[in-house]
Amino acid sequence: MAPREAPALRVAEAQETVLNAVRPIGTETIDLVSALWRVLAEDVVAIRSIPPADNSAMDGYAVRIADVAAATPERPVILPVSEVVPAGKRARAPLEPGHAVKIMTGAPMPEGADTVVRVEHTDGGTERVTIERAPEPGENVRRAGEDIEAGDVVLAAGTLLRPAELGLLASVNRPRVLVTVRPRVAILATGDEVADLGHPDAALEDRVLDANSYSLAGQVLEAGGVPLLLGVARDDRRVIGERIEAGLRADVLVTSGGVSVGDYDYVREVLDRLGLERLFWKVMIRPGGPLAFGLLGGRPVFCLPGNPVASMVTAELFLRPALRKMLGHPNVARETVVATLTEPISARKGYRTFVRAVLRRERGERIVSSTGPQGSGILRSMSRANALIVVPEDVERYEAGARVEVMRLE
Amino acid sequence: MAPREAPALRVAEAQETVLNAVRPIGTETIDLVSALWRVLAEDVVAIRSIPPADNSAMDGYAVRIADVAAATPERPVILPVSEVVPAGKRARAPLEPGHAVKIMTGAPMPEGADTVVRVEHTDGGTERVTIERAPEPGENVRRAGEDIEAGDVVLAAGTLLRPAELGLLASVNRPRVLVTVRPRVAILATGDEVADLGHPDAALEDRVLDANSYSLAGQVLEAGGVPLLLGVARDDRRVIGERIEAGLRADVLVTSGGVSVGDYDYVREVLDRLGLERLFWKVMIRPGGPLAFGLLGGRPVFCLPGNPVASMVTAELFLRPALRKMLGHPNVARETVVATLTEPISARKGYRTFVRAVLRRERGERIVSSTGPQGSGILRSMSRANALIVVPEDVERYEAGARVEVMRLE
Repeated sequence: MAPREAPALRVAEAQETVLNAVRPIGTETIDLVSALWRVLAEDVVAIRSIPPADNSAMDGYAVRIADVAAATPERPVILPVSEVVPAGKRARAPLEPGHAVKIMTGAPMPEGADTVVRVEHTDGGTERVTIERAPEPGENVRRAGEDIEAGDVVLAAGTLLRPAELGLLASVNRPRVLVTVRPRVAILATGDEVADLGHPDAALEDRVLDANSYSLAGQVLEAGGVPLLLGVARDDRRVIGERIEAGLRADVLVTSGGVSVGDYDYVREVLDRLGLERLFWKVMIRPGGPLAFGLLGGRPVFCLPGNPVASMVTAELFLRPALRKMLGHPNVARETVVATLTEPISARKGYRTFVRAVLRRERGERIVSSTGPQGSGILRSMSRANALIVVPEDVERYEAGARVEVMRLE
Repeated sequence: MAPREAPALRVAEAQETVLNAVRPIGTETIDLVSALWRVLAEDVVAIRSIPPADNSAMDGYAVRIADVAAATPERPVILPVSEVVPAGKRARAPLEPGHAVKIMTGAPMPEGADTVVRVEHTDGGTERVTIERAPEPGENVRRAGEDIEAGDVVLAAGTLLRPAELGLLASVNRPRVLVTVRPRVAILATGDEVADLGHPDAALEDRVLDANSYSLAGQVLEAGGVPLLLGVARDDRRVIGERIEAGLRADVLVTSGGVSVGDYDYVREVLDRLGLERLFWKVMIRPGGPLAFGLLGGRPVFCLPGNPVASMVTAELFLRPALRKMLGHPNVARETVVATLTEPISARKGYRTFVRAVLRRERGERIVSSTGPQGSGILRSMSRANALIVVPEDVERYEAGARVEVMRLE
């Protein structure tokens, strides 16, 4: 058995250790549609105002308010139409007093005009127009710079790009933007008892299929990373060494299984040989099991438990925040809320326990229930869960009705 | 001006009309990692139980409970180790009474053994083992079928595939799965006043840049569809006709701009000529403007307003639920919650109004504020927003402190 120098950390300390050890890995320029859900890596400055000039917010007639202020359905105002301006064009001449210019939504206001009468409040005429309703002064005019002033920082570095931000970037003529690079995350499953999907060994009764590589790949994608599946390495010093070295081409390495106290676990040995700077090797977490983190050539290395649920829970708590920080993401942590527990739950003192749970709303109140058996091999409970109940280290039992902290998984 | 036969629908009626008109478009088989966030289109049945046989949940010693029940640190029980079973192997012989078999996590239980003593509660011996703590009967044993029984439907058609579901599908040896097809959504911007990003016209002062194609592309991706950008068509019967016909190669067509009462709008004319079955042409919504929906050869066609914010809001309310239904997604609608309003807001009676807003939490309570000026061209307010306040048709004003319905956008 390998020596065990490092003390076990509490979850919060271990999370802090991970976040302190990782940093953004770089930036790249990509096209705007591909930038959805990416994190902006530059301050985007507007090179001109939006709108660039006062323009019409409606299809209608540009007028001077003084000429139409008295219009009513009973006593409409009739004005000669001096010009009809199509969309994308501008009036050739300034608006003379006592005249109207027919314009389209978005057209620049003719010089001298201050207000737009909506076409619905007129007869729509092109030679002369009958105006049946007086607008407010300045009504239906969008002012130059109303949305964005030239020189404004439209979006700052660190902004998450959602659909509205893509539109905003388009509106300042940015077909490509600088964003942070998505970390590539190599995922290695280990263990002679684990078989890869579709492998002939998968049919053997004493093998379990490699669920972890796939749930971890999903978690990596969800966090914004790019998963690279290295497959399953059997418990063999040479095979594990080769796979881990292959994994070091990525930005992050994640292993699952193979760091227990078992005699046949070579992951730790290989990582030590390669020069892993160990930052922790054990965390007081349930479900957990062996859980290690360190740096290898500056690259974060996570050794997660082989148990499928423990692998997912520890990836949520340690891998996801790390990837978010590497992305410069504004939200590193999952949202937590307070909810009322429907049943008692027990936990082991000294450990922070995460109970798979269903969070729902009943008559405006948040209610949370465990998904049932928490035997840590039961992946189905993770599938039913939309949240994790967080039981702090000093709590051994919550009664039904307790107000508890819940981490949302969606 | 074109005739306007159809009456204006209320938002709820229009949403129902859209949902009744669309249906899932098909299924495809894809690899498991690519299936994240897709919707399963088959019932997945387990062909064998998981675990396939009783096995050890820990590294330790398989024993009969009767032999170790009396073990304490002061009076340990010492048993001969009849076999050491590596991971991925099984014991060669049944466990004789009064003996122990050293096994690894995941190894099948030897015949005759009923309990596992964790290695931490022993001296780890391989010839004989000193056991210092009595386990509970059956402790540390995972039962055959504990997670999944052969023949169980592991996941039903219609399930959204999250990371846990990928793991679950892997655990039943499904490297590929049948999922619903992502609708391809052709997006066309129209209007002589609109210029495409990077186009020489983009520099002209009287042009606005095409923000809508990009915000809509983001919304389509977010809803689960695949955007196809058709670019900007100028207000020309022939050009618009060609682009719309190109767009009909997709599963859904979305236009923005070009269905107002303006004289230069050809979108409606072209769609009518192609045989659009109009289902509605006007909706009582703010921000809105002209908003149409129909079917062309069974294909949903959405004509959204040209105003960038109105385009986003109407896409949220009509396009997104349609795409979700086409995907067979379990959640067609956005989550709505109730929150306390921080300031008065006014709305136009008869219209359902959606106010861009910031939803936040203060001392456990949900608080919502408008993002400020709601001038419908102000895309920046959409970028600041994480929610929309819903003002029903019969409300003209909410006072500060009112409890209001809020649609979350994230």
